[in-house]
Amino acid sequence: MAVRQHIFDTITQIFRRHGAVTIDTPVMELTEILAGKYGEDSKLIYDLADQGGEQCSLRYDLTVPFARYMAMHGKPSQYQCKRYQLAKVYRRDQPAMTKGRLREFYQCDFDIAGQYDLMIPDTEILCVLKETLDSLQLPVDYDIKLNHRQLLDGVFRVAGVAPDAVRAVSSTIDKLDKQPWTEVHYELMHERGLDKNVADRIGHYVQQNGDAQLLQKLADEPTLMANPQASQGIRELQLLMDYGEVFDIRDKIKVDLSLARGLDYYTGIIYEAVTHGTHGVGSIAAGGRYDDLVGMLLNKPNKKIPCVGVSIGVERIFSLLMEMHQQGHSDSSIRGSPTQVYVISVGDGLVKQRMQIAKELWDAGIAASYMYKSKPKLEKQWAVCDREAIPLAVIIGQDELDQGVVRIKDMSNKDEAQGKGQTLPRSGMVSAVLDRLSR
Amino acid sequence: MAVRQHIFDTITQIFRRHGAVTIDTPVMELTEILAGKYGEDSKLIYDLADQGGEQCSLRYDLTVPFARYMAMHGKPSQYQCKRYQLAKVYRRDQPAMTKGRLREFYQCDFDIAGQYDLMIPDTEILCVLKETLDSLQLPVDYDIKLNHRQLLDGVFRVAGVAPDAVRAVSSTIDKLDKQPWTEVHYELMHERGLDKNVADRIGHYVQQNGDAQLLQKLADEPTLMANPQASQGIRELQLLMDYGEVFDIRDKIKVDLSLARGLDYYTGIIYEAVTHGTHGVGSIAAGGRYDDLVGMLLNKPNKKIPCVGVSIGVERIFSLLMEMHQQGHSDSSIRGSPTQVYVISVGDGLVKQRMQIAKELWDAGIAASYMYKSKPKLEKQWAVCDREAIPLAVIIGQDELDQGVVRIKDMSNKDEAQGKGQTLPRSGMVSAVLDRLSR
Repeated sequence: MAVRQHIFDTITQIFRRHGAVTIDTPVMELTEILAGKYGEDSKLIYDLADQGGEQCSLRYDLTVPFARYMAMHGKPSQYQCKRYQLAKVYRRDQPAMTKGRLREFYQCDFDIAGQYDLMIPDTEILCVLKETLDSLQLPVDYDIKLNHRQLLDGVFRVAGVAPDAVRAVSSTIDKLDKQPWTEVHYELMHERGLDKNVADRIGHYVQQNGDAQLLQKLADEPTLMANPQASQGIRELQLLMDYGEVFDIRDKIKVDLSLARGLDYYTGIIYEAVTHGTHGVGSIAAGGRYDDLVGMLLNKPNKKIPCVGVSIGVERIFSLLMEMHQQGHSDSSIRGSPTQVYVISVGDGLVKQRMQIAKELWDAGIAASYMYKSKPKLEKQWAVCDREAIPLAVIIGQDELDQGVVRIKDMSNKDEAQGKGQTLPRSGMVSAVLDRLSR
Repeated sequence: MAVRQHIFDTITQIFRRHGAVTIDTPVMELTEILAGKYGEDSKLIYDLADQGGEQCSLRYDLTVPFARYMAMHGKPSQYQCKRYQLAKVYRRDQPAMTKGRLREFYQCDFDIAGQYDLMIPDTEILCVLKETLDSLQLPVDYDIKLNHRQLLDGVFRVAGVAPDAVRAVSSTIDKLDKQPWTEVHYELMHERGLDKNVADRIGHYVQQNGDAQLLQKLADEPTLMANPQASQGIRELQLLMDYGEVFDIRDKIKVDLSLARGLDYYTGIIYEAVTHGTHGVGSIAAGGRYDDLVGMLLNKPNKKIPCVGVSIGVERIFSLLMEMHQQGHSDSSIRGSPTQVYVISVGDGLVKQRMQIAKELWDAGIAASYMYKSKPKLEKQWAVCDREAIPLAVIIGQDELDQGVVRIKDMSNKDEAQGKGQTLPRSGMVSAVLDRLSR
């Protein structure tokens, strides 16, 4: 939980730095709200038993609940709604602990809703994504794969795919991150029924990835640019790359025409952050633009509240950081116990005196503990300091009490030279402890 | 959410100051784990639909999941396990928004598990409770009602109640906070079937409340002290009052022999924090000692892991603080938007220049925003500052860009004297903003 809290705190700090407020939505949504939003994955939704009242299900992601919230509460005046949400979602999937795939898991979402000028919020979302992943100091490098739904759909149309086959072809293409092109090509012909030359033309495009130069190369193809969807997608990606230079994110972005993303609701740019190498966790964040989802939930397809967002895969990041932590390579400020001072008695138990000292420390905002025994053994008290890596001990015995002093000992320092610790008047204890903790 | 976050932060800080770590448990538990733990309220448990696999329900509180966690993971070496948990629980109840009674709501629990010397952890729990409620600066005063299950059971036995009727009589007595004694007396005779003189003897005790003097008066009654349960209860309460003096909590504690608490699992002290007056929210925190619950979940009643804990009623506290906030009486640091600086352009849109300034501020850890328009109107930018109460604006126009300067304006200060704000070199912007924010 200490590692997890470190992740949450890092992410929250960045989300807030970008001006986002947080909202909370119930863990359950009306079953009908979730229906038809997740394609084939809808079978993974948990339903509540029918005990009377509305039929509810557990949320599958945080995007649909946010869109539902915007449909219920979004007013034109909220034209700059940035929100983040760190919350659990639920999927009746086969768990795989080491890959960070669970039935209950956290998602951390950052979304911007509202009518804005082209690509301005989109670029900031990618900036937030890069700042977040960089701040977490992952043990592996990553890329942000970038594509555009309209570019992809345009490519399929230009290649000769019929309009009503576009979504199905798209979900086959999405397998290119796990399967070689030859297999996908085979599936396009034999499962999706495409002609060989249509599949070949698709292959010409979706095997390309690169940077702004690739976009320029595509922009120079008259057949592609003649398709309005493709040309709109390319123009938007070029503007994104232009703004992205200001935010210093272009080195992380890899335009990848094979990225398709399974969910139905995306309408513009789509992206996925992927770790390098064979670490097994794969995608650690993903998102895109979904301009029609709020209108769909309002049953008013014309009343658009355009949205763009990203979802950080906390569990996968947790797997990576936990592994580092267990190998002793993580940030040393991540400790299990929050206790800063352990109050120890030598000789007699002195329970009320230990309580009194703890109270003085608490009142000064210092995290203090003591053993809940009336006559604890000295070695057992030392053992707690060791086990919980408590940095300081305040030690009292009858002698110290008689003289109105306490001893402070640095427990992280095994140097024998400090002997029985520093003896100082009781009245100076709190300031001495604060001083040592601030070093 | 800003008010709610303020409550969570305040509570978490105090819990951690007392050395507690946090754990997380799933929102669903096996249905059989929750069965038989909540008396009559078990009908309020939400069940998940049977979609194959284990039959699960949504958690009803955080105490049973914690005890289940201890039963699964608690080892003798974890003899000082203090944990807190801030999480949602679920009850199929009739909601009452103004009273803070909802179907999904947060609980904040602090528990201490392990074999310790008598009343030492119990006293700290009450100290945590007092520190928490005091730190939240509620608009009303409160008392901590205190009783002891064994004292109460002893009282019933001494009054002449048969052993197997004790729990039923106890739940009737629990109504004394809402009903007058005459009604409860009537119910004891006509629904619980007690003789009038038995009911009268119960009334003699349960109408008493007071402080340490009351405990001494009870300790002086030979008939009561002859009952081993009653005398154990009184001895423990007296020790708690003795330790409580060190923690300065005695002025908040009101020993109240009518406090019974409905839940089945309490075995020692029980308590409830109650606001004064007719504010309608009533109990704002409650808890007690439950020594047998972990053993019960282990199916090994002899293997005890004694526990004591408190649950803070965040929703009711939220109702109180939100009301203050809406009346403008709350802590002024509670703001909706986290944005500290709004980056404004005068004249031309200068979108990339605004982005560049925001990036410099973000990199310095400052929360900055700007309007997502390529050519925003000046008055619309001012309006955002006003609406979101953003304290500072950084202003640029073509003149400022040409001269390599920016203007900083204090937006909370309507004093005309600051005119167009302070003009300063672009290179000094970040430190000037940090300086103004720290004032």
